[in-house]
Amino acid sequence: MKQRLKIIKIGGNIINSKNALSSFLDDFSKIKESKILIHGGGKRASEMISELGLKPKMVNGRRVTDEASLEVVTMVYAGLLNKNIVVELQKNNCNAIGLSGADANTILAHKRIVKDIDYGFAGDIDAVSSDIIKIFIENRLTPVFCAITHDQKGQLLNTNADTIAAEIAKGMCKDFEVELIYCFEKKGVLKNMEDEESVIEKINSNSYQDLKNKGIISDGMLPKLDNCFEALQNGVEKIIIGKPTVINEKSLKHTTLVL
Amino acid sequence: MKQRLKIIKIGGNIINSKNALSSFLDDFSKIKESKILIHGGGKRASEMISELGLKPKMVNGRRVTDEASLEVVTMVYAGLLNKNIVVELQKNNCNAIGLSGADANTILAHKRIVKDIDYGFAGDIDAVSSDIIKIFIENRLTPVFCAITHDQKGQLLNTNADTIAAEIAKGMCKDFEVELIYCFEKKGVLKNMEDEESVIEKINSNSYQDLKNKGIISDGMLPKLDNCFEALQNGVEKIIIGKPTVINEKSLKHTTLVL
Repeated sequence: MKQRLKIIKIGGNIINSKNALSSFLDDFSKIKESKILIHGGGKRASEMISELGLKPKMVNGRRVTDEASLEVVTMVYAGLLNKNIVVELQKNNCNAIGLSGADANTILAHKRIVKDIDYGFAGDIDAVSSDIIKIFIENRLTPVFCAITHDQKGQLLNTNADTIAAEIAKGMCKDFEVELIYCFEKKGVLKNMEDEESVIEKINSNSYQDLKNKGIISDGMLPKLDNCFEALQNGVEKIIIGKPTVINEKSLKHTTLVL
Repeated sequence: MKQRLKIIKIGGNIINSKNALSSFLDDFSKIKESKILIHGGGKRASEMISELGLKPKMVNGRRVTDEASLEVVTMVYAGLLNKNIVVELQKNNCNAIGLSGADANTILAHKRIVKDIDYGFAGDIDAVSSDIIKIFIENRLTPVFCAITHDQKGQLLNTNADTIAAEIAKGMCKDFEVELIYCFEKKGVLKNMEDEESVIEKINSNSYQDLKNKGIISDGMLPKLDNCFEALQNGVEKIIIGKPTVINEKSLKHTTLVL
């Protein structure tokens, strides 16, 4: 039987609060199974961009990673946030190793191809080196990924952390029974965005089609869930979406996705 | 027979120039033996401190790492510089993995004890986890260390890169035949600081005592060389001091230190 592996993604809502992050990392350290953490950026990168007198470049309301932003994002994600997470996990006796996708060539990507919008140095993932990640885990290390990848041609690339989590999860299925957990600000996928308690507790491929057809799942959630079902089709056992505390309190209301 | 391992330290003079760094990394990638790179900070951190409107804190002419400087140093060393070095090595088909001492608990340190001067968040090294570094090397990874360590109590620490190189070299002697190479702006240890060509080509413990007694070796070089001889006494095979190009061109004038 394959060993179990939990892959957990946290975003800005946790990272922006020192207390929330600390409390999450405490819970995370207590997970007994092998585990991987993926973290997004939070608002520190935007703050740093304005502290440095730079202007975030936007096209059609979407952020574009120009050269100056990539420099800041590399500093903040791979330096400040990643090392502060690692050092706190080390304090909790969790032997963390902070990684970008360039480190040990763990995540290979290419610069997003320009169609309507040029997103600049944004990466779309081509491959995850699951073999080397497996070696880290076998040596009792806990990989902590920031949202930076590379193209093996010398270019770092700003990459969506949700996608990194899904791609790592898919890559690790070969050797592990993988559970992927997305921690965000709500208790799960909501039937009614106005009602925090209207969590849809279980969604499978069939009911997902139904929810989409009925227009119950909102626009912002669709690409996220499409990615999730793609990951499930590629061997991920189970995906959980919920508040950060869900990682150790399974009694808490949350959404479970299965095939 | 033990496998050979080259440990190379580069400082600001290489890091500050994009061309010099690129050319060094090209040479470094061509080294066939197992290898480790340690890099200092260069002027980018000081630039960033002033770009952010912070003032470097100095006491008796020495820089003190206060909380704000530590944040910048963590961003610049572990983020910007480390990942840009890693991504360039990856381009050269050198499978680099960027590390701070917090990652995989590779370098444990403590906050420097306050005697006359409080250096703030400066680290003095207690232990190097050579076993995990060995596992990286056995898996054909090339560790690239920045000058940040931790105390396993949740504190990152700014740490002298020369010392990190010496401590890693000492730690790796158990399993490897270690050669330590310090790349700096001069061709080697000079007899006469005014004469670039006055390189002392070989120094051993006896001649070092003699050079010290005669006052030939200058003040700035003394702590560096004391550290080197301590590393040699602890099992490091050979130490080379010279220009960056010395790593692949042994015909180039340089200083060799042996016991």
